[in-house]
Amino acid sequence: MESNVIPGNGCIFEIMDYSNDGFSEYWVEDKEGVDFENLGRIPEGTTRWINIDGGCPQSTLERISGTFSIHPLITEDITNKIQRAKIEDYDDYLYIVSKMIYYNEDELVIEHISFILGCNYVISFGELKGDVFTNIRDRIRNQNTLIRKSGADYLMYSLLDAIVDGYFEVLEVLGERIDKVEEVVLQKSSKETLHEIREIKNNLMYIHKYIWPLREVTSWLGKDSTELIRPATELYIRDVYDHIIQIIDTTETYRELLAGLIDLNLSSVSFRLNEVMKVLTIISTIFIPLTFIAGVYGMNFKYMPEIGWKYGYYATWIVMIVIAVSMIIYFKKKKWF
Amino acid sequence: MESNVIPGNGCIFEIMDYSNDGFSEYWVEDKEGVDFENLGRIPEGTTRWINIDGGCPQSTLERISGTFSIHPLITEDITNKIQRAKIEDYDDYLYIVSKMIYYNEDELVIEHISFILGCNYVISFGELKGDVFTNIRDRIRNQNTLIRKSGADYLMYSLLDAIVDGYFEVLEVLGERIDKVEEVVLQKSSKETLHEIREIKNNLMYIHKYIWPLREVTSWLGKDSTELIRPATELYIRDVYDHIIQIIDTTETYRELLAGLIDLNLSSVSFRLNEVMKVLTIISTIFIPLTFIAGVYGMNFKYMPEIGWKYGYYATWIVMIVIAVSMIIYFKKKKWF
Amino acid sequence: MESNVIPGNGCIFEIMDYSNDGFSEYWVEDKEGVDFENLGRIPEGTTRWINIDGGCPQSTLERISGTFSIHPLITEDITNKIQRAKIEDYDDYLYIVSKMIYYNEDELVIEHISFILGCNYVISFGELKGDVFTNIRDRIRNQNTLIRKSGADYLMYSLLDAIVDGYFEVLEVLGERIDKVEEVVLQKSSKETLHEIREIKNNLMYIHKYIWPLREVTSWLGKDSTELIRPATELYIRDVYDHIIQIIDTTETYRELLAGLIDLNLSSVSFRLNEVMKVLTIISTIFIPLTFIAGVYGMNFKYMPEIGWKYGYYATWIVMIVIAVSMIIYFKKKKWF
Amino acid sequence: MESNVIPGNGCIFEIMDYSNDGFSEYWVEDKEGVDFENLGRIPEGTTRWINIDGGCPQSTLERISGTFSIHPLITEDITNKIQRAKIEDYDDYLYIVSKMIYYNEDELVIEHISFILGCNYVISFGELKGDVFTNIRDRIRNQNTLIRKSGADYLMYSLLDAIVDGYFEVLEVLGERIDKVEEVVLQKSSKETLHEIREIKNNLMYIHKYIWPLREVTSWLGKDSTELIRPATELYIRDVYDHIIQIIDTTETYRELLAGLIDLNLSSVSFRLNEVMKVLTIISTIFIPLTFIAGVYGMNFKYMPEIGWKYGYYATWIVMIVIAVSMIIYFKKKKWF
Amino acid sequence: MESNVIPGNGCIFEIMDYSNDGFSEYWVEDKEGVDFENLGRIPEGTTRWINIDGGCPQSTLERISGTFSIHPLITEDITNKIQRAKIEDYDDYLYIVSKMIYYNEDELVIEHISFILGCNYVISFGELKGDVFTNIRDRIRNQNTLIRKSGADYLMYSLLDAIVDGYFEVLEVLGERIDKVEEVVLQKSSKETLHEIREIKNNLMYIHKYIWPLREVTSWLGKDSTELIRPATELYIRDVYDHIIQIIDTTETYRELLAGLIDLNLSSVSFRLNEVMKVLTIISTIFIPLTFIAGVYGMNFKYMPEIGWKYGYYATWIVMIVIAVSMIIYFKKKKWF
Ligand SMILES: [Mg+2]
Ligand SMILES: [Mg+2]
Ligand SMILES: [Mg+2]
Ligand SMILES: [Mg+2]
Ligand SMILES: [Mg+2]
Ligand SMILES: [Mg+2]
Ligand SMILES: [Mg+2]
Ligand SMILES: [Mg+2]
Ligand SMILES: [Mg+2]
Ligand SMILES: [Mg+2]
Ligand SMILES: [Mg+2]
Ligand SMILES: [Mg+2]
Ligand SMILES: [Mg+2]
Ligand SMILES: [Mg+2]
Ligand SMILES: [Mg+2]
Ligand SMILES: [Mg+2]
Ligand SMILES: [Mg+2]
Ligand SMILES: [Mg+2]
Ligand SMILES: [Mg+2]
Ligand SMILES: [Mg+2]
Ligand SMILES: [Mg+2]
Ligand SMILES: [Mg+2]
Ligand SMILES: [Mg+2]
Ligand SMILES: [Mg+2]
Ligand SMILES: [Mg+2]
Ligand SMILES: [Mg+2]
Ligand SMILES: [Mg+2]
Ligand SMILES: [Mg+2]
Ligand SMILES: [Mg+2]
Ligand SMILES: [Mg+2]
Ligand SMILES: [Mg+2]
Repeated sequence: MESNVIPGNGCIFEIMDYSNDGFSEYWVEDKEGVDFENLGRIPEGTTRWINIDGGCPQSTLERISGTFSIHPLITEDITNKIQRAKIEDYDDYLYIVSKMIYYNEDELVIEHISFILGCNYVISFGELKGDVFTNIRDRIRNQNTLIRKSGADYLMYSLLDAIVDGYFEVLEVLGERIDKVEEVVLQKSSKETLHEIREIKNNLMYIHKYIWPLREVTSWLGKDSTELIRPATELYIRDVYDHIIQIIDTTETYRELLAGLIDLNLSSVSFRLNEVMKVLTIISTIFIPLTFIAGVYGMNFKYMPEIGWKYGYYATWIVMIVIAVSMIIYFKKKKWF
Repeated sequence: MESNVIPGNGCIFEIMDYSNDGFSEYWVEDKEGVDFENLGRIPEGTTRWINIDGGCPQSTLERISGTFSIHPLITEDITNKIQRAKIEDYDDYLYIVSKMIYYNEDELVIEHISFILGCNYVISFGELKGDVFTNIRDRIRNQNTLIRKSGADYLMYSLLDAIVDGYFEVLEVLGERIDKVEEVVLQKSSKETLHEIREIKNNLMYIHKYIWPLREVTSWLGKDSTELIRPATELYIRDVYDHIIQIIDTTETYRELLAGLIDLNLSSVSFRLNEVMKVLTIISTIFIPLTFIAGVYGMNFKYMPEIGWKYGYYATWIVMIVIAVSMIIYFKKKKWF
Repeated sequence: MESNVIPGNGCIFEIMDYSNDGFSEYWVEDKEGVDFENLGRIPEGTTRWINIDGGCPQSTLERISGTFSIHPLITEDITNKIQRAKIEDYDDYLYIVSKMIYYNEDELVIEHISFILGCNYVISFGELKGDVFTNIRDRIRNQNTLIRKSGADYLMYSLLDAIVDGYFEVLEVLGERIDKVEEVVLQKSSKETLHEIREIKNNLMYIHKYIWPLREVTSWLGKDSTELIRPATELYIRDVYDHIIQIIDTTETYRELLAGLIDLNLSSVSFRLNEVMKVLTIISTIFIPLTFIAGVYGMNFKYMPEIGWKYGYYATWIVMIVIAVSMIIYFKKKKWF
Repeated sequence: MESNVIPGNGCIFEIMDYSNDGFSEYWVEDKEGVDFENLGRIPEGTTRWINIDGGCPQSTLERISGTFSIHPLITEDITNKIQRAKIEDYDDYLYIVSKMIYYNEDELVIEHISFILGCNYVISFGELKGDVFTNIRDRIRNQNTLIRKSGADYLMYSLLDAIVDGYFEVLEVLGERIDKVEEVVLQKSSKETLHEIREIKNNLMYIHKYIWPLREVTSWLGKDSTELIRPATELYIRDVYDHIIQIIDTTETYRELLAGLIDLNLSSVSFRLNEVMKVLTIISTIFIPLTFIAGVYGMNFKYMPEIGWKYGYYATWIVMIVIAVSMIIYFKKKKWF
Repeated sequence: MESNVIPGNGCIFEIMDYSNDGFSEYWVEDKEGVDFENLGRIPEGTTRWINIDGGCPQSTLERISGTFSIHPLITEDITNKIQRAKIEDYDDYLYIVSKMIYYNEDELVIEHISFILGCNYVISFGELKGDVFTNIRDRIRNQNTLIRKSGADYLMYSLLDAIVDGYFEVLEVLGERIDKVEEVVLQKSSKETLHEIREIKNNLMYIHKYIWPLREVTSWLGKDSTELIRPATELYIRDVYDHIIQIIDTTETYRELLAGLIDLNLSSVSFRLNEVMKVLTIISTIFIPLTFIAGVYGMNFKYMPEIGWKYGYYATWIVMIVIAVSMIIYFKKKKWF
């Protein structure tokens, strides 16, 4: 599923009409070329997918709301990026809004996307150019695909299914990053691992946050709540619900794994550091008393009996060695190193 | 949405009467000028908004309760600042109480505010001078606004919507503070960051604590629970409910981000400190044995063979260098630095 | 709300009969003076409050159970201090048990208190002398108070309301202690703060533990579950329910604040300690190599060229200063201090 | 409640028949002496309690299942020690399984015990010799006790009540251990406290784990779910449910207290250690520069002007004292000790 | 329950037909030998178990879906390893998918396994060669076993029961590993214990994650939700549900135990380290002042009165000993060691 975000300024109008017999497809760069009256007139037996990509300006939004009589509250939600995934039933059409997550040249894109599902049309409003629907366009262009034999509700299922598959792919990438971090932490943990773990954790949090409300959306859609979705398609939507549960399940598993890694990272770093400091301190602690003894016999007192003694020097060495060895034995016995 | 808190002692009476045809507005500084009988008589087809700002004294409260026959328990809640957001249905009027949060010259104001919603009037009791309703007053003063064409229930929706928007703006400020803290923590974490993180955390907690009960208030209002709210307005109130969920959602996301930052802050501080201590201890541990050797040959024993030896001095230097270099190699090999 | 715990051994019988017209009140120190038969006979239109304070001995308990035909299980609960707050519906009477918390000369008292609510009487069994009902006794003694115009159910509401207000006052004291601890932690945290924080935490835990079950008690009482409570009084009981939610709300907020303080306390202590240790270690690490050099030229080798050299001494000083300064620059550059 | 675990190999059959008029009781060491046919025939108006203690061998279990037509799944659960407390309704009998916890010479015993409650009989299968039912046997042997006037359902209540009281007694012991640990931690925490705290924590966990499912068992039994339990006995069973809630409540309180103690233990240990290390490091940091100065004037350079100087020695002492004192003042000012 | 994973490439078809009178069993290595038409025709009164092990290729999957008219969504789930345990009711057949966990030569195997339960057949699709059903095959081969007298629903119960028993056995192994780790941690904790604990924790997490959804599967099956399961078998399935609760219960207990061990491990390591560092630092802190004194009298000043003093040397020794002893007493009194 590759996504092609076409950098351009204005929004793009992409209209696909299809039925079991054939399909037609045309693009319009800016809103002048769009004949809004006609947009609402959809021929018998045809399903129309109107995809407005790259952020729809306010004026165009109002013209379309006029044609399809969309409630002002919906136009507000279409442009309000903090809007959470939800579904609202306006009887003759459904308003569905969600986050679409996918990689565009290994940069994570989070796109706000809204859908209006009518009896024979779907309008999709994408905040950024590019999306995860390439595969759906191909299936529409091919002759005997299930999508060509089905109506707007199956199209809506396919769009949701593609969005949810996008979450899966992002999760797979995160899964690989977790495996790599795990290897690093097991040998030599470092500060970089800290930042990498935090990044993965935040990504997982956003995936969880954006997929979570989609659960309610697909469960409502899959439970015969509206005439706009035929029973056969409900079965497919329940499959998407199933995949959403798996995504939530996998994010929670990844989070637990990460939490374990963070603990392991911190404790193994502090373990290693403690070992180092203990060994260093033991070395200095052994030498400090010896340096003291050396210092004592470096004193210039006139009357220092041992100084004159023939074997003074050797005696001192023996005393020092005895002290050092007994300290090492003592530390070994107490299992300090 | 700017709020103008006018410092003054007594409470202010602000009465706005409006309908689709026109509107009237007058202020009274202190309660003498208020004709309480008349306050209750509202002309046909007019919506009256009585706003009592800056803390309503007990006597005034009793006079108003008399006019609008408000239950003594409500008067108690109006003055009890610990009162949590809630809604109480007294059939011919609703009592709604909530916290209003907004910035007044970048100082966070938490104001206790109560509303009585009647069939054609709304009374609002604000604990402090100033509020977030400036925009609503303008819309009432303008000719063809939706608010002028609607009744008291739409006014109540607008007041709630303004309050909830206040929470959004406070959250945005906190979002920016989190971004700033994130940059600081990534380079050099310090004790100041600790205090800033704690302050943001406490603010988030209060927002969560005050918005949370508003969820139940707007969900009850949006579900056809009372005649006082017409179905069209219920749709708008459900939109406020939607924004409340987003605020709760965002506070929870910010809390998780902060928790991550706190961990990162603590672990990166302890990481850096450990590095410093390890290097310092390695340096001293290398020199301590050398100082011991120097100390040994600083001893004044009569008979010390090496002392007299021609190359004693150079030999000692070689021994010391060998010891130092071998310790460094040993530490390098064990990846201690 | 002051409470007067009268130290005395036996339990006290305090019987108050009142109606809108008048009231009577008499005390009996020990059970001999109590005429148990008469205790059950309550004149028409009168509400009787029998308060047995300071722990009711088993024999008295059995005599009273006989008069008011109280189930043996209740007598067991009245004396069982671990009994959790609960309500039990025995049709012609309700059994309510709870914890009463109040300060008696700034020592926190947790008293086990049981109530039997009949159609025109309330019997209260207090484990210790003294309670939080002084204000209620005054209201009964005054002529035109709401309590005098109401029955046993309003009395029961007033008793519960007084108990819950007791929790509020204890919470306010804890709130002040948290503010004081916050100031201390922000400057210089110490071990004493640890103990103070732990004490506040335990107090909050007990408040939460004892208030929590009261939620169910008042919510059951406020929901038209028994004939013994008239609708008007249910409104008042719902207000007590409201205050209980606020208490739970406030304890949870205080707990979060405390958790923040504990983290801040621990991290700022470890921050400060790390700073101290780092500076001290830097000082010693700078001097150790210099002491080594001094030690080298303190050696008594016969042939040590530098020793004889005229500027040996000054050269050594220069070398030492160069080493010290370059170490300081190195540490500064690496932002170690 | 003392329990007498009689060490012996085979299981013991203990059959008590009782009614308001009289009671009979006999023991059989091994299964040969048991007349299984007769075991099922219970005289009119008599309640039979068959207690099989010390682990019932498979063959005996099958003979009894034959007599009382017990489902094979139950025989499996009777011997499966990991089986969680639960209740299963087989219409003409109930199968109840639970854990029995009690101290046997201050060693905590966790015994798996199953009951079959029929209309006029209770069969109890205890995994180990000894139990907590001594008090019940006495009440059966006494003439005018409530148990003698009641049927098998009241016997079942008494058995459950005795089991739950067992949990209370174990909790009391743990409560005392927590108080002792608290005193220790407040003065001088040590590693032993760590082990003691962990042991208490694990015991609390097992109590919580075994009592938790009993909640559902007694709540089902207390809610008129089966003909086998008369309404009057349901009241008593609800009292056991009440005590179970208290046990859960108390375990959770003890867990919070313990968590607080663990934190306090760890932080006060690290506090104390930090103080020690800080003081020690300050002492050495003050002496290291002085030792350096002593080392400098211990050098044997020919030309060292200060050496010859008459007051060189005293000047050095003054310099050293000045350095030491100024370091101490500096540390004091920065509140480092 | 031993499982024999037979390494081989292609998938194996294993078909067992049985009834109370007899049974037949044949194997086919690759799909050529499989007569798909016949596979669907099952003789009267016979139960057919078709086990396709070692990963079923797409083509075979489609041929079987054709014969048993299985929905395309199911074929997708059969091969999708991330699929969570679930049950889907397609009226004339049930689709059950789960994870099967067992040890194959002490290596933990997690196998994705799907079942199609028809009125008189069960098809099982195992992802890897080998499973936990050996015991079931034996019971089918034996003459008078309950399984031979029952239908496809009892077979399905036996398969689920075997899978759940597999989880038990894995848990028992983990239980033993926890006991071993506990002994290690109690004496000398080390980094290896860290890795072992983390591995056990991750295993427990996966068991919990895979068993959790099975709870809903067996609870749905045990509650008379489908004609395909007879009431008698529902009783057995509820027993499996019972065992699943025990597994969840045990995993949660093991997790708490492990958490306790991790804390104990970390705190006892830091305790021990602190002791070591404290003793070492105390030793060096005692010697540093003494070395200073030695250094002072090692200075070569011409005029040093004490140097010439007859008892200078002994006086210095006394001073040094007095300092050392008083420091030790001071440290002892402050309970520093
Ligand atoms: Mg909206
Ligand atoms: Mg969102
Ligand atoms: Mg797009
Ligand atoms: Mg298709
Ligand atoms: Mg999908
Ligand atoms: Mg798909
Ligand atoms: Mg109130
Ligand atoms: Mg509040
Ligand atoms: Mg205001
Ligand atoms: Mg408007
Ligand atoms: Mg809004
Ligand atoms: Mg708005
Ligand atoms: Mg009780
Ligand atoms: Mg309690
Ligand atoms: Mg009292
Ligand atoms: Mg009153
Ligand atoms: Mg109150
Ligand atoms: Mg009050
Ligand atoms: Mg079982
Ligand atoms: Mg259990
Ligand atoms: Mg026993
Ligand atoms: Mg009895
Ligand atoms: Mg009991
Ligand atoms: Mg009892
Ligand atoms: Mg699927
Ligand atoms: Mg999964
Ligand atoms: Mg699964
Ligand atoms: Mg297999
Ligand atoms: Mg069988
Ligand atoms: Mg099993
Ligand atoms: Mg089995």
